[in-house]
Amino acid sequence: MTNSVARTPVVAVIGAGTIGLGWITLFLSHGLTVRVNSRRTGAERIVRDGLRVFAPTLPGGARDPEELAARLEFEPDVAHAVEGVDVVQENSPEDLPLKQELFKLVGEAAPPEALLLSSTSTLLPDDMGALMADRSRLIVGHPFNPPHVVPLVEVVGGAATAPGALEEAAAFYRSVGKVPVVLRKAVPRFVANRLQSALLQECVHLVREGVVGIEELDDIVTHSIGLRWSTVGPFLAFHLGGGEGGLRHWLTHLGTGLERSWQELGHPRMDPETIEFLSTQAERAFGNRSYAELATERDRKQNAVLNALARITPDAAGPDTARTDDV
Amino acid sequence: MTNSVARTPVVAVIGAGTIGLGWITLFLSHGLTVRVNSRRTGAERIVRDGLRVFAPTLPGGARDPEELAARLEFEPDVAHAVEGVDVVQENSPEDLPLKQELFKLVGEAAPPEALLLSSTSTLLPDDMGALMADRSRLIVGHPFNPPHVVPLVEVVGGAATAPGALEEAAAFYRSVGKVPVVLRKAVPRFVANRLQSALLQECVHLVREGVVGIEELDDIVTHSIGLRWSTVGPFLAFHLGGGEGGLRHWLTHLGTGLERSWQELGHPRMDPETIEFLSTQAERAFGNRSYAELATERDRKQNAVLNALARITPDAAGPDTARTDDV
Repeated sequence: MTNSVARTPVVAVIGAGTIGLGWITLFLSHGLTVRVNSRRTGAERIVRDGLRVFAPTLPGGARDPEELAARLEFEPDVAHAVEGVDVVQENSPEDLPLKQELFKLVGEAAPPEALLLSSTSTLLPDDMGALMADRSRLIVGHPFNPPHVVPLVEVVGGAATAPGALEEAAAFYRSVGKVPVVLRKAVPRFVANRLQSALLQECVHLVREGVVGIEELDDIVTHSIGLRWSTVGPFLAFHLGGGEGGLRHWLTHLGTGLERSWQELGHPRMDPETIEFLSTQAERAFGNRSYAELATERDRKQNAVLNALARITPDAAGPDTARTDDV
Repeated sequence: MTNSVARTPVVAVIGAGTIGLGWITLFLSHGLTVRVNSRRTGAERIVRDGLRVFAPTLPGGARDPEELAARLEFEPDVAHAVEGVDVVQENSPEDLPLKQELFKLVGEAAPPEALLLSSTSTLLPDDMGALMADRSRLIVGHPFNPPHVVPLVEVVGGAATAPGALEEAAAFYRSVGKVPVVLRKAVPRFVANRLQSALLQECVHLVREGVVGIEELDDIVTHSIGLRWSTVGPFLAFHLGGGEGGLRHWLTHLGTGLERSWQELGHPRMDPETIEFLSTQAERAFGNRSYAELATERDRKQNAVLNALARITPDAAGPDTARTDDV
């Protein structure tokens, strides 16, 4: 991985669900050879169909799915699939014993210098690698859905992780246009999903209390904090909220109020009534448009935002600037 | 307000702090006459300086501050300031007795058909209007900072609000390019700030626990959930997360896990050690750039996002499409 090689790097993608398909599309678009290992029947057709759906919403601009498929391989046997690869990106179900068995096989069959990356959103490397002789290169590379569009990858190691392997994983993700962030310490469900969960708790509370409907809540978010957090993170936003005195001024003057506001947040139950209430509202609000239509619009918009921001800060990670296929 | 009038509408802006200055710039850019009432010494100079800072980051594109100032008036006496106006936008400190006295004066001096709008982020119309003979047209119009850039205005009425007045207020805000959302029920600190507070609680927790530093946390947010929520709100995002089965499928299968995840969220204290810890990190991360530089960059980016999204969905409220000066 660390040494430049003349040949095209090979990535084994294990699992061809939504996340796997996103990675496959992204890796192919960056010139890598992708070897797909999937237990799904008709995997080859599923992947070729997925490429046709995802290729038009690649951040760098639509690509021809047939052209992308030229570097696509299929290998139903996992040991053969990871033979001689540079990187493995694993996307099997969130089932610890399954992943433990899988990584045992992968560890035996993959080259010792390969990076073994897992898309898991809930499991940790030390646990997933419990049956491996050497789990030092097993690392979490948790993407945000869809992985071919959203830049973030949370990179998480464990006690057994080799020195330098985290940075190698981050370099790999940067090479395919991603924005990797290495967590300093593992925490359940990592960072982005915890933050999402915190916000969602209050969303559910406010809708359940009848303060707003779900469409109004969505409108509020996209036109205020969503817009804000697409350009500056929560801490820089609060730093600027403090004016010339910055975050220190803000927290010193408003910190007590902030702590009090946390105590006033809601604690809704996700009971059957709440699920029914929210689902009915969602079906009324979004049900007249298909999944594919809504998801494509989301991704077109996300790419438009990424491109607009990349034009403003040419040094920022963005689809146009980050496309180097140098793995 | 409701009838079209041939003359230029007049808005009295009470208070010329950061929020007041944002409104002044926005209203002037939409062709309104703005009468400023401020108790600050040197208010006229402050406002003219503020116009020069804000005019370059107007969503529709930079404007000449001198040209904007042509329809700017100053009136230090509040009763005279609101005489004959169409709209009052009040931005005085968050001090209930002060606002009660102020709205008593405003109610006596403003035309009975004028909309009386308050930028308050914490107080309710019924309370602010306690000393008024008629508080039926006193409404909260709470902007997100900076008001000349961020589209959201939370519109909140009270028990005494006149039928139709909320929709009139919303129409006024739409006429100056804003995206108003009328809350169905008042709730402390309204919606956007509660959601922001919920997210910030977990941000502080994760940084305090050493999982990430504040810059890494900001990177995580801007490159995942910030990007996502600038294009789709939390509910549409989760609806799409459920695939073809939508939110109902998502909640039915993952609702229990979501509720469990809420119980694992952190509850940090905003004690002096935490304030010191976060402030030091913020100063190290952002201290080498001035407030003006960082705020201007934020607003350039926010406008770039707004413009990019407006080009994708021409029917969406955006700076280019929503500019009608028809008050």
